Amino acid sequence: MQNWLLPDYLSDILPAEARRIEELRRRLLDLYRAHGFEMVTPPLVEYTDSLLVGQSDSLSLQTCTLVDQISGRNIGVRADMTPQITRIDAHLLNREGVTRLCYCGTVLHARPAGLLSDRELMQIGAEIYGYEGVEADIQVIQLALESLMTAGVSAVRVDLNYPGITRALIQAFSGFNQDTITKIYTYLKDKDKTSLALLLDQYPTLPAQIKSGLLALPTLYGGVEILDKAQEILPPLAEVQKGIQSLRAIVAELNTAQLSIDLADVTGYAYHTGVIFALYADGWHEALVRGGRYDNLSEAFGRARAATGFSLDLRKLSTHLTPASPSKAIKAPWLNDKALNSQINALREAGYIVVQELPNSHISVDEFIFEQELVFEQGEWQLKKIAD
Amino acid sequence: MQNWLLPDYLSDILPAEARRIEELRRRLLDLYRAHGFEMVTPPLVEYTDSLLVGQSDSLSLQTCTLVDQISGRNIGVRADMTPQITRIDAHLLNREGVTRLCYCGTVLHARPAGLLSDRELMQIGAEIYGYEGVEADIQVIQLALESLMTAGVSAVRVDLNYPGITRALIQAFSGFNQDTITKIYTYLKDKDKTSLALLLDQYPTLPAQIKSGLLALPTLYGGVEILDKAQEILPPLAEVQKGIQSLRAIVAELNTAQLSIDLADVTGYAYHTGVIFALYADGWHEALVRGGRYDNLSEAFGRARAATGFSLDLRKLSTHLTPASPSKAIKAPWLNDKALNSQINALREAGYIVVQELPNSHISVDEFIFEQELVFEQGEWQLKKIAD
Repeated sequence: MQNWLLPDYLSDILPAEARRIEELRRRLLDLYRAHGFEMVTPPLVEYTDSLLVGQSDSLSLQTCTLVDQISGRNIGVRADMTPQITRIDAHLLNREGVTRLCYCGTVLHARPAGLLSDRELMQIGAEIYGYEGVEADIQVIQLALESLMTAGVSAVRVDLNYPGITRALIQAFSGFNQDTITKIYTYLKDKDKTSLALLLDQYPTLPAQIKSGLLALPTLYGGVEILDKAQEILPPLAEVQKGIQSLRAIVAELNTAQLSIDLADVTGYAYHTGVIFALYADGWHEALVRGGRYDNLSEAFGRARAATGFSLDLRKLSTHLTPASPSKAIKAPWLNDKALNSQINALREAGYIVVQELPNSHISVDEFIFEQELVFEQGEWQLKKIAD
Repeated sequence: MQNWLLPDYLSDILPAEARRIEELRRRLLDLYRAHGFEMVTPPLVEYTDSLLVGQSDSLSLQTCTLVDQISGRNIGVRADMTPQITRIDAHLLNREGVTRLCYCGTVLHARPAGLLSDRELMQIGAEIYGYEGVEADIQVIQLALESLMTAGVSAVRVDLNYPGITRALIQAFSGFNQDTITKIYTYLKDKDKTSLALLLDQYPTLPAQIKSGLLALPTLYGGVEILDKAQEILPPLAEVQKGIQSLRAIVAELNTAQLSIDLADVTGYAYHTGVIFALYADGWHEALVRGGRYDNLSEAFGRARAATGFSLDLRKLSTHLTPASPSKAIKAPWLNDKALNSQINALREAGYIVVQELPNSHISVDEFIFEQELVFEQGEWQLKKIAD
């Protein structure tokens, strides 16, 4: 094996891409700040006990773990920063009112989430804590949309969902065991109405309203109109009503034409409780942003707080963007000359890039184009255009 | 154990500190860019075989390792980014001329380097590849000094050294075994002249010039004047001459009063070959910046390239700085009102922070001070000062 080989699904980021990511990082963090989100930075590793709070089994398999040499306990490299931000809000900040937090950091997956995914993501996100109303969900979705606009992504499609609707239908009948519940979720995800009907037929005491509701779920996908359909077909359970109302309120506020709802698809959201959403755009295979409400997660940190937010992978978002074009730069000699060095300093302070050529060498660079150079003429250092 | 406890020597970064670090991060990356350094970002984890190239045993103990689930090989979370940047220059960029690279990322130590150290550092640094001359060392040291000035640190002390001088003296005599060499380094580090003399007395064939040179090393510390003393006392080996000349050239270029040289202390620099340096300042216990030349490291990646650079811990550097003071912000209501929302957008685009108060709630925030609010008066939304 050669020393320069990297493990699969990991790669170096070279200058043009690194610059593009850095610029997007700054624009997004500035956007979140302009909306009143305060930045926090949790550590890269934590005890797995706190890192995996509220995580599904699949997410804990995603986490790289090792033994802490100091405590002898298991620690893990975070695979998702949201539980860490939730811990900071619940325990460390310990505020009563509405708290807006944003963050940006590296997360690591033990295996890639998909064949086209990386194992290392640059997760950036924003979360609102302490507000139960749908207004917080709306603000979070609007900010996610604005994040994509800031990155120059157009024609964004919003997928909305409310996993509590399916959960309420399943929990309304006490006769399902865990195995059956897993099967129901699988059939719903696959829109396999036949298998679902066969399974439910095995429960003669299942109330007709619940049964017809569950069987209707795989058909409840499409545009806004399916909310009316759901209202009509699904049983009037409290959580079902709340879900439909929340989705209606969000749809009414979003000024977006491309919107889809799929009440049967509730996969990939481990700790979410209320409205969840994903943003897609042409040319990207996977969702660019995922987010939603997760009111129960903070209980594990000693304080139940309402919570909703989103995150995205900075590197993935930047891949389809126009690469940062090389910047204009000024070439200067390397001399122990006061007049020259003070002029170089002044140019740099004024925002110019000045690269000094060390004696008997040439500069190798991709990211800069030299259009001018500092030359000594008529007793002073002057900026001259470099001849082609 | 409570879920919110973190492992020792790891901690969360809360809003005021996170902001201060983010601002310093941007200023330093902009500084390096203005000097023509291109940014690269290597992955957080790599095969330990490449990560630990040229590392001393103590540094490999610093690296957290785990088994890669895909390849079954050992991977490690980087404890230092410099070998990664060297791999990128040698193999990936594969340029012939002088290449300037900068980087910023998280590094993890299995154990803290000192009692006051963290296990997670935010390493930021700059490296020049492909130039053997002392001019590259000078530029790197000047940029490191400028980094501290940018961070507002004053009264910086520069420690200079050249480990090749000690190495040349030891290697000039073939009779030392590895055990003896380790002892010589320890006695030199401790300035234990008595033990060193007793040890060297055991080698009757040791040339008198080498012996007197080694015994003189513990006295060769102080200001610039010790270079003259070294020239006079030490044997005229080629590497000794080169070291003294390099140090002289650097001293001549640095406009700094506070400079010290300690030819006996060569600890803590695993892969360095030429001039090495550390920057200290009042109020900090440890060095703020470490750097130097490491021409041999890239051979492991298939291409020998000259290299010199430095790195620092962003978080440590920011700890003694004045915390970012809360920013002025504007409070606004949350309404589905076109006029209000377009005014909020315009204010945010103009650089203002506007935080919307969700219905029946209050905003909890440390980082912002609300001095104005948007209120509806006389038929339009107006900015009004908030009464104390």
